[in-house]
Amino acid sequence: MIGGTVGEVVESRNDKYAVGDKVVGFGGWQLYSTATGKGDVTKVDTTHIPLSAYLGSVGMPGMTAWYGLMKICEPKAGETVCVDAASGAVGSVVGQLAKLKGMHVVGIAGGPDKCAYVRDELGFDECIDYKAFPEPADFYAALKAVTPRGIDCHFENVGGSIMDAVLLRMNAFGRIALCGMISGYNGVPIPMAAPQLILQSRLKIQGFIVSEHMNLWPEGLGELGGLVATGKLKFRESIADGLASAPQAFFDLLKGKNFGKQLVKLV
Amino acid sequence: MIGGTVGEVVESRNDKYAVGDKVVGFGGWQLYSTATGKGDVTKVDTTHIPLSAYLGSVGMPGMTAWYGLMKICEPKAGETVCVDAASGAVGSVVGQLAKLKGMHVVGIAGGPDKCAYVRDELGFDECIDYKAFPEPADFYAALKAVTPRGIDCHFENVGGSIMDAVLLRMNAFGRIALCGMISGYNGVPIPMAAPQLILQSRLKIQGFIVSEHMNLWPEGLGELGGLVATGKLKFRESIADGLASAPQAFFDLLKGKNFGKQLVKLV
Repeated sequence: MIGGTVGEVVESRNDKYAVGDKVVGFGGWQLYSTATGKGDVTKVDTTHIPLSAYLGSVGMPGMTAWYGLMKICEPKAGETVCVDAASGAVGSVVGQLAKLKGMHVVGIAGGPDKCAYVRDELGFDECIDYKAFPEPADFYAALKAVTPRGIDCHFENVGGSIMDAVLLRMNAFGRIALCGMISGYNGVPIPMAAPQLILQSRLKIQGFIVSEHMNLWPEGLGELGGLVATGKLKFRESIADGLASAPQAFFDLLKGKNFGKQLVKLV
Repeated sequence: MIGGTVGEVVESRNDKYAVGDKVVGFGGWQLYSTATGKGDVTKVDTTHIPLSAYLGSVGMPGMTAWYGLMKICEPKAGETVCVDAASGAVGSVVGQLAKLKGMHVVGIAGGPDKCAYVRDELGFDECIDYKAFPEPADFYAALKAVTPRGIDCHFENVGGSIMDAVLLRMNAFGRIALCGMISGYNGVPIPMAAPQLILQSRLKIQGFIVSEHMNLWPEGLGELGGLVATGKLKFRESIADGLASAPQAFFDLLKGKNFGKQLVKLV
């Protein structure tokens, strides 16, 4: 896995890149990398957008949120959207974009701090701390309480029992953007309890990988960049210090210990 | 549940319907019914299409096949499509339509007679008798053997372990029209073993009920009627004799004892 990176040009033999230019690309897990300048790095403007945001809200995670919400969920003002891993790099963008589209936004996150952030700083209408409801029936009751009109769109990052509960709340003709199923990434089976709900509620579920839709990146990143530059799209980062800290940061990510986009700072 | 019926006008006070006209509608489980003539019955042409076909290939089951295949699966020539309950009123139309669209068609049916019919009379490329493979691993191996290039489209009527096996064979960007899950209609849970395949293969799964898409019926029935009238779309019926036989016919349907569209003949 080649790490996505942001950095600064320190030497250049290419007229289009000057020393000091800020760039985003796949530089890998190293302090210095050589770029061909033929599409492998992109110069970015840090006048109004912090450099690190190009790895988050104005980068791949932001585009993931934008694509899934706009192209699969097809948001409509007044509808209810749900997103889990709501304080994360993707979920936080999903919810804020959905609010800007006039939706009723319900987040699901792990722990009271993350939920407070999602509600109070990001402006979601509701947030459920799933850790407070270890029993599926209790989690479902909590979800039902904050979705009195059901759920029209769902952006799935987690899968497993959370997705099972959401499926029970989906309205007819609901759309689910299947972006991640982190609850199964440790190899534990995560069967879907009642797939017949897809039929009964005439749902559309669609999996996607945003890097397969590069043609839409200019449109999406344009919208996201404008929102970050004007302060309408907030984000948070967890920064691990030094390459040696990367493995532990990865383990922590899988356990949800990070808060917002997990970055590793090399220098 | 009001029974869908075909029949003949025996008395009329409406200029648009003459005694002897053949009609399709929801006449219910009775010998005679009164129609308002305001959309509750439709006059049909039996010159080239048998009356009973309006309850099958040129009726709701046919439209179900047409809608799911054309609008959700979005067939492409050269792709592989799979359909289960392949000898049934819906599946048989799915496969024949798909052949006409230039697809490689794999059916799944219960028993050697149904599979022979699907292959030899309906012209499917392959048919797997799922009853010959009670072990999921064996069924999967049989499915794999007849889908060397994977599956691009799937039309699901059954659910459960059959759907689990199909999911493992789906190609990237595959489409699944979720039409029925009869394996769960007796109340037995039918969890989906590995929903992460939807993400990994970037699949679209969509449930639908054809009666919610009435605007497309003229287009679909036009195509289906032409195909039946010209002998390009074949079908088979199981006819139970008399209203008293209806309950048993329904039980048999759920066990797959019917062959093609299950009808009940009242007179």
